[in-house]
Amino acid sequence: MTARPIGKLLVANRGEIAVRIIRTCAELGIPTVAAYSAADRDSAAVRLADERIRIGPGPAKRSYLYIPAIIEAARATGADAIHPGYGFLSENPDFAEVCESEGLVFVGAPAPVMAELGDKSSARALMTAAGLPLLPGSRDPIDAVEDAEALADEIGYPVIIKAVAGGGGRGMRVVRDHADFAAAWQETRANAAAVFGDGRLYVERYLDSARHVEAQILADTHGTVVHLGLRDCSLQRRHQKLVEESPAPGLSPELVERIGATAVRGAEAVGYVGAGTFEFLLAPDGRFYFMEVNCRLQVEHPVTEMVTGLDLVAEQLRIAAGERLSIPPAAAHPNGVSIECRINAEDPRREFAPAPGTLTECVLPGGPFVRVDTHIETGYSIPPHYDSLLAKIVVWAPTRDAAIARMRRALAETRIDGRGVATTTEFLHDILDHPRFRAGEHDTALIGSLTTPVATR
Amino acid sequence: MTARPIGKLLVANRGEIAVRIIRTCAELGIPTVAAYSAADRDSAAVRLADERIRIGPGPAKRSYLYIPAIIEAARATGADAIHPGYGFLSENPDFAEVCESEGLVFVGAPAPVMAELGDKSSARALMTAAGLPLLPGSRDPIDAVEDAEALADEIGYPVIIKAVAGGGGRGMRVVRDHADFAAAWQETRANAAAVFGDGRLYVERYLDSARHVEAQILADTHGTVVHLGLRDCSLQRRHQKLVEESPAPGLSPELVERIGATAVRGAEAVGYVGAGTFEFLLAPDGRFYFMEVNCRLQVEHPVTEMVTGLDLVAEQLRIAAGERLSIPPAAAHPNGVSIECRINAEDPRREFAPAPGTLTECVLPGGPFVRVDTHIETGYSIPPHYDSLLAKIVVWAPTRDAAIARMRRALAETRIDGRGVATTTEFLHDILDHPRFRAGEHDTALIGSLTTPVATR
Repeated sequence: MTARPIGKLLVANRGEIAVRIIRTCAELGIPTVAAYSAADRDSAAVRLADERIRIGPGPAKRSYLYIPAIIEAARATGADAIHPGYGFLSENPDFAEVCESEGLVFVGAPAPVMAELGDKSSARALMTAAGLPLLPGSRDPIDAVEDAEALADEIGYPVIIKAVAGGGGRGMRVVRDHADFAAAWQETRANAAAVFGDGRLYVERYLDSARHVEAQILADTHGTVVHLGLRDCSLQRRHQKLVEESPAPGLSPELVERIGATAVRGAEAVGYVGAGTFEFLLAPDGRFYFMEVNCRLQVEHPVTEMVTGLDLVAEQLRIAAGERLSIPPAAAHPNGVSIECRINAEDPRREFAPAPGTLTECVLPGGPFVRVDTHIETGYSIPPHYDSLLAKIVVWAPTRDAAIARMRRALAETRIDGRGVATTTEFLHDILDHPRFRAGEHDTALIGSLTTPVATR
Repeated sequence: MTARPIGKLLVANRGEIAVRIIRTCAELGIPTVAAYSAADRDSAAVRLADERIRIGPGPAKRSYLYIPAIIEAARATGADAIHPGYGFLSENPDFAEVCESEGLVFVGAPAPVMAELGDKSSARALMTAAGLPLLPGSRDPIDAVEDAEALADEIGYPVIIKAVAGGGGRGMRVVRDHADFAAAWQETRANAAAVFGDGRLYVERYLDSARHVEAQILADTHGTVVHLGLRDCSLQRRHQKLVEESPAPGLSPELVERIGATAVRGAEAVGYVGAGTFEFLLAPDGRFYFMEVNCRLQVEHPVTEMVTGLDLVAEQLRIAAGERLSIPPAAAHPNGVSIECRINAEDPRREFAPAPGTLTECVLPGGPFVRVDTHIETGYSIPPHYDSLLAKIVVWAPTRDAAIARMRRALAETRIDGRGVATTTEFLHDILDHPRFRAGEHDTALIGSLTTPVATR
């Protein structure tokens, strides 16, 4: 893996994360090139970067996902490093490999590590071998209902039957009793075959009220791995996070350290390098189960920054340059509480359908301990090609109650409007007012319970 | 002094500080009333407050300085407390007294304490009595040159001769040697008589390269006084601060604690209540000298907030409500470094003459550890009646070098433009690049040396 001082960085992304990366580079004195699609030609990242180069038309597969155009953009501008942000090519091992072979520093995990962790099967095998706890269940699809039933009995109820081809809440069935299992299995298989054209099923332990917690880790090229505490990202709609916070509320320092150390062990086992996130499901009894590794910066990284004082993009760049990590050990012990709310151009009343358009009004919050990461402004036209994230509102406060009050204030100041544009702002306000969220007792089921029922829950 | 829970707060101020106060009230659940002049009818504070009431026309003496209108506004809206912000009526003991007699909570220092500390002579006498160090010099004007010369010899050179009627850098003369004193005295007296029509003079020790440092204190109605560390505000133009930071760079923890404890002693001596600031001149040899007390929130209070995690407006409101201070002792030990830059509508090339107008462009910075306190937006018309402060850009970072880099980045993102509008933005950028500022070796003379020479230095 190439690691050397960065002379000029190409930002192979768009929107708020491109702005985010450019800001850190400006502070570190690293010149930047914004690689942009035609749809983003007037965007904030293009304006803020030191240089800019067009890489193709609006659709991502012809620009932000098109490897040859990005490599050519780096070559043409003399950039010697590429930051992929999140999404797009950020977890694409082929892209990392091409960068490597072209002599470009890829700001991310090594290609082979990304390949291993990107495949859910091999990731689970590797982490099992490293001693990480996984939810009990079948690692491969099961054919015979008798085998599935025997496994379910062994796991203990409730279990969840999952279609291999399902996802996003579809093709799943929770079974709470042995007596119901065989019928549920046959029905789910028939449905899956009809809907997805693929009737293969798994069975796994089902957690009734799990929380999504994740450990931020940093690993340098010299073998040092640290964790920076946990984030709670249980508030999701259609498996996409809407509200995140750090630290995860209500956990004992011992449990936080245990989960963090587990992530560090997993990272060490695979020779991880860079910033990464180990996602876990946390059961009410305090047991936690590995889900997956995200080999990139997370959208919600600011909450970790706010409670540690670190700049995670700067840490990524230092690691990519081959420097040793110099994170104070206190970084795992958060100072205060940070919450992030994602303002998306989506209509919560229409199952979060994208609602893009041109912004006629864009007032964002400010003042004490409020941070806004965004690329939008009044007059901005939301391109239809990309995800719907408009802005991240991030607050910090000494306590969780004060952080919630501050976020409510910040959301109340936020006014984003436009022809055809709907946003999650009011919905977020409702979530913050929910008694279970205020008590820190929310789980991944909360948002579903507030909106449309999920048919196959 | 009235101290009781606040039911509804009237904000008797405008601009960024009105917005600042309303934000904290929103977080604390205290309803607010914006008292506004006709010139501010479309301002952010008026929009963000829960209620609004017009108190008069644009000129401050007919609105923000007109006590009967403000008292009537509180009465008409049912507000039971008034926050005066800074400037205007914030240090007016008569206003505090009227609030008291009308049964309104005045969020500020007690009227008698303000009266004593507002008079520079009595303030210096009180602080001398409390054992605070003052610059050696005459407390009253001196008539005979022989008396002045004898005092100068006693003080030690260099000394500064000051016209009673002078100020803002005019009517001052530094003398470095006994041999030059008598002539300088006679000349300065003749000049002062000619220019100001008042030939009375003082003499005082002159500090060649002093820094302006100030201790933030909080005092509750139960007799508890704490300090929250120091701010350095040496970068001033015409005695108005442009750049402030906390902690004061390069001082030993012992010296910080000594200055802070001195401020606490001064506050205790006068029975101070509320948020207040003790200003000192700090000589290169580490000796410091009391200058004055500001009995109010300072413009630069955010840098203290950023390194302590406290909300000083919330603390003011708690004190005014009669609550006990609950500041963790660690608050005097700052976390990281914060810098504030004031964006004023002034032209640095025209001796900082006000340059108001209507804003055609207003892009403010954001992202990691950047805070903006402002009331402006695109389309905002800067009224001619008030001071020229448009926005405060505040950054935080773990180290001073990182904070300077972050501020340079934040200023580079800032774009404020309009017909006839000039701002201090670029000038601030130049200051941040100055080797003496970067080294933390700046003093109150630095900005003067960058702009027009001061004739009588």
